[in-house]
Amino acid sequence: MEFSRDDLPVGTPVVGMVGGGQLARMTQETAIALGVQLRVLAEGPAVSAAQAVADAPVGDYRDPDAVRRFVAGCDVVTFDHEHVPTELLREMEAAGVAVRPGPDALVHAQDKGVMRERLAKIGIPSPEFSLVADVAEATAFAERVGGFPIVLKTTRGGYDGKGVWVVDGPDECTDAFAAGVPILAEEKVDFVRELSALVARSPHGQAVAYPIVESVQIDGICVEVTAPAPGLDPERAAQAQQNALRIAGELGVVGVLAVEMFEARDGRLLVNELAMRPHNTGHWSIEGAVTSQFENHLRAVLDLPLGSPAARAPYTVMVNVLGGDVADMHKGLLHCMARDPELKVHFYGKPVRPGRKVGHVTAYGPDLDEVRERARHAAAYLTGTIDE
Amino acid sequence: MEFSRDDLPVGTPVVGMVGGGQLARMTQETAIALGVQLRVLAEGPAVSAAQAVADAPVGDYRDPDAVRRFVAGCDVVTFDHEHVPTELLREMEAAGVAVRPGPDALVHAQDKGVMRERLAKIGIPSPEFSLVADVAEATAFAERVGGFPIVLKTTRGGYDGKGVWVVDGPDECTDAFAAGVPILAEEKVDFVRELSALVARSPHGQAVAYPIVESVQIDGICVEVTAPAPGLDPERAAQAQQNALRIAGELGVVGVLAVEMFEARDGRLLVNELAMRPHNTGHWSIEGAVTSQFENHLRAVLDLPLGSPAARAPYTVMVNVLGGDVADMHKGLLHCMARDPELKVHFYGKPVRPGRKVGHVTAYGPDLDEVRERARHAAAYLTGTIDE
Repeated sequence: MEFSRDDLPVGTPVVGMVGGGQLARMTQETAIALGVQLRVLAEGPAVSAAQAVADAPVGDYRDPDAVRRFVAGCDVVTFDHEHVPTELLREMEAAGVAVRPGPDALVHAQDKGVMRERLAKIGIPSPEFSLVADVAEATAFAERVGGFPIVLKTTRGGYDGKGVWVVDGPDECTDAFAAGVPILAEEKVDFVRELSALVARSPHGQAVAYPIVESVQIDGICVEVTAPAPGLDPERAAQAQQNALRIAGELGVVGVLAVEMFEARDGRLLVNELAMRPHNTGHWSIEGAVTSQFENHLRAVLDLPLGSPAARAPYTVMVNVLGGDVADMHKGLLHCMARDPELKVHFYGKPVRPGRKVGHVTAYGPDLDEVRERARHAAAYLTGTIDE
Repeated sequence: MEFSRDDLPVGTPVVGMVGGGQLARMTQETAIALGVQLRVLAEGPAVSAAQAVADAPVGDYRDPDAVRRFVAGCDVVTFDHEHVPTELLREMEAAGVAVRPGPDALVHAQDKGVMRERLAKIGIPSPEFSLVADVAEATAFAERVGGFPIVLKTTRGGYDGKGVWVVDGPDECTDAFAAGVPILAEEKVDFVRELSALVARSPHGQAVAYPIVESVQIDGICVEVTAPAPGLDPERAAQAQQNALRIAGELGVVGVLAVEMFEARDGRLLVNELAMRPHNTGHWSIEGAVTSQFENHLRAVLDLPLGSPAARAPYTVMVNVLGGDVADMHKGLLHCMARDPELKVHFYGKPVRPGRKVGHVTAYGPDLDEVRERARHAAAYLTGTIDE
């Protein structure tokens, strides 16, 4: 149900979040604590966040009327995903709605071509890239960067490995061009590992940087995050934080910005992707940091002073729980919670489908190997890939 | 809205909580994480927890029909307060509803006379007491325990200082007897400080004990909690935990049990009150313990293995934010959050009324004096008793 201002304590901020996925669901945990009334534009009446929020009207984020109705009465509008059309965001902003992050920032998380060109312009180290129109242009790009393999990506709409092709020669490029959408060609970076730099930034320019984390991706899906990234040279970590803060400032980001990076074998730190919302590589912060990414996202979009991003434990490891053969995820809790009384479990209220992110687990402590084993074990047990 | 089982992932537990106050509201934070669907029987459409929960039907907990409708479809029923009539709970239990804690346990938190007699029977150190029918009996009791002052309490319905009288002589006893309800007379304990022992217990008998905390009460209202209780002798702390675990076991408590105790000047640890739900003296555990009292309450009532109650910081101090002259509590966040980036704020979505618990703040760290100053300052600033 929608609450009138008279129903809520004086001064209660109403934050609208477009999208009812697990990011909105987890934002609600911290909204409750902060006394923020969260309103979610949900894809259906029982999606992840709609189960957890009192005020979750159903509507299509591409439908201008639905979005206009949704934002009426919100103090601030923010996002669970980056798919709201830029023109619609501009219209809202022109109508006086506080859209955070705003469309001029968000477009860099929506369009990889725009992002690449902007990062190049402000001198942030990135993979070589080129917008390519056909196989011939892709092949020419490959020759310029030392040959195949290269990476082709749709500039818009890709996520979790969708819309990304690693191609070994001209013959493999046809899939990418089949849909007739703009395609970005990128150097295939020879990387040691992937890192993520998470920052939060307020409208008035305050910003905080979380410790740099290491993420492990399989088939383009994040499966594990270790905070802080083990063995990362402190100067390189500081450089990664500086780059992320600089991007946030230059692009005028408000809220959380996640900068996914490659640690290249040749030592370069190269930006892979940007996301302007709480991010999978920041879920560790719920228990692992003084202020979670969800809390700092809310504080940022409300222009409240940001909370400390400092780590609370020497190591925190988050492992995603992906859908497997087990439909009832709750049964596994008996074993996992009994085995590890310090384990933290997060379920997203999403029915199991193979490979779907349906939850995550977090462990923390002083011994990285032990912490990692605990988190990996629990995720594997809940997924159903091990049974003891 | 109510969700059908088909709307939720297979195995999702539905927990009904009777009462829509801040305890239900804070339980929702952890229900979201655990993938538990929380259903709240709310006093009104916009009470504290109703703002934060998707499924919050309005109904009177004293109305058998409302309660019957509410429990239909819940896997387990638990409580935000102890006021549901015992007969109604017994009827639900007889109908096969899992009521946790059950009526035979809960009556000890509802009726101070029953509680006193039971604790005496199982040998838990408690103040001297007697059920008294009139001023003459109260006076006789006073003579037996060394004279006035003594404490008179209604056996049922009192909380936060209401229904409690400290009386200096027979003339002052009349108020307590005016309403014609049963009155308990108790020795006025000469105490050094108040302590609280919080435990959680499962239906199958697993139990965990949180560190013993010190609480400060003013006019019968908890205002500050320090975890762990500073300078408490470890043997005495262990004894307090043992007593609480013993009470939980003997009374068959399921969920959180808070045992408020006096540390008497003569060295005795005497039980003052029992509560069978998450308790104000356990709010520190949200950030201060590995598993919060709200999470362990849910885990207990669902008969899931309990989480570690261990402290995460050397000291955690919680200070209640009581309603003062400032109606807009959110304005003060600008100052408090900027001053202390590690401060944790919890607002309850309750309009300010003088003296009403409208939120709490938590600080933690290695230096007790500093931690206490941070929490006290923030609470005083938000309440409006200081302005810098």
